[in-house]
Amino acid sequence: MISHRSPSSPFALPSWAVCRLQSQKNPITTDQARMGFVIELAAANVEEGTGGPFGAAVFERRTGQLVAIGVNLVESTRCSHAHAEMAALANAQRTLGNFNLGADSLPQHELVTSCEPCAMCYGAIPWSGVRRVVCGARASDAEAIGFDEGAKPKQWVRELNKRGISVVRDLCRQEAVAVLQHYKATGGAIYGTSRMR
Amino acid sequence: MISHRSPSSPFALPSWAVCRLQSQKNPITTDQARMGFVIELAAANVEEGTGGPFGAAVFERRTGQLVAIGVNLVESTRCSHAHAEMAALANAQRTLGNFNLGADSLPQHELVTSCEPCAMCYGAIPWSGVRRVVCGARASDAEAIGFDEGAKPKQWVRELNKRGISVVRDLCRQEAVAVLQHYKATGGAIYGTSRMR
Repeated sequence: MISHRSPSSPFALPSWAVCRLQSQKNPITTDQARMGFVIELAAANVEEGTGGPFGAAVFERRTGQLVAIGVNLVESTRCSHAHAEMAALANAQRTLGNFNLGADSLPQHELVTSCEPCAMCYGAIPWSGVRRVVCGARASDAEAIGFDEGAKPKQWVRELNKRGISVVRDLCRQEAVAVLQHYKATGGAIYGTSRMR
Repeated sequence: MISHRSPSSPFALPSWAVCRLQSQKNPITTDQARMGFVIELAAANVEEGTGGPFGAAVFERRTGQLVAIGVNLVESTRCSHAHAEMAALANAQRTLGNFNLGADSLPQHELVTSCEPCAMCYGAIPWSGVRRVVCGARASDAEAIGFDEGAKPKQWVRELNKRGISVVRDLCRQEAVAVLQHYKATGGAIYGTSRMR
C-alpha cells in the first residue's frame, strides 16, 4: 500500500475560533444566549476575514453544555461543503467520537445556527442525530443580500419534525440579519458559482 | 493564540482507495465505463470493510479525466457527512485548489455516483460547481434495503436543471442495485439514527 497523509479537515477551525471555543463560559443555559453566541461567531468570522457571515454551534440540549462550533469556511478551506452548520456538526461528532449525536449512549443534542440551513445543511441534519434546530435569520434574509440557499422541500420543517427533530425559527432574527447586512454593506464576497452560498 | 493541530478530513480515503485512484487507467472516456468504475468502488468499499455500498467520482466532463473519488466513510471517519458524493466533491476541490469546480479557469466537471444523491448530497451539488450528475441506482433502491435517503424536493432534477446542472439517471442501474443487495445479503450495517443513510 502506498502511504497517504490525511489532508486536514475542511471543517478545521481558524485559530481565533479555537480560542473563542476554549474561553467560552460554559454551559450556556438559555436559547437566547446560545443564539447570541452563534451570532457573535458569525460577526467575528467576517471581522477576522475567515469567511462568510454564518455561525453555528452544537449544544447538549438539556444542560446547554457547548460541544462544538462552526463558521463558514468555504473560501479559506476551498471546500464548498464548509458551511457553519456542517462544520459545527462534524466538529461535534469528532469531539464525541460518534457519527450519531443522537446515539443512546449520549445526551440529546441541538444545533443552533445564525441563519436557517441551506438545502445541503437541511439534508445533513437528520443524519447528524441532533434532535432540535434553532435558527436566527431566515433563508430569505440571506437571499436578500445575494446568497442562493438552494431548493429545500416546501415543508422542510415538517420533514424534520417527521424525523423527530423540532425546529425553532426567528430567534433574535433582527440581530442575525444585522450581521448579514453589515457583511453586504462592507463589500463581503457573495462567492460561488452564481452568487451561491 | 493557542496552537491547534488540524484534524484529518472526514473525506480522507482509505489506503486501498488511494491505490485504486493512483493505478486507474486515465481518462475514462464513456459514461458506462465511468459508472462501472464507481460501482466497483462501492463494491470494494464493502469488501474492504471501510463503509457502506456507495461510490462516486468527479471527472472532467469532456475528456473523462478522473479528478477524485469518494466512498461512503461514515462509520470509519465517525462523520455523518462522509457520503461518497460529498467525499468525491471535497477531494476534487482539494485536488484543484478551488471550492468551485465550475470556475471559469477550469474545464467543466461532472459527478458520477453509484446511487442517486440523498437530500444532503443533492443540496451540496450546486455549491460544488459540477455541471452534470450521472446516477446508477435510484434512491428507492437504497430505501428498499433499509437506508433513509431523506426528503428532497419532488422536482429535484428540475431544481438542479434550473441551476445549469444536467442529470442522467438509471445508468447501469441493475449492476448498481446488485451491490446494494449484496451488501444487505451479507449483513452490512444499515447505520444511523433510525436506519438512516
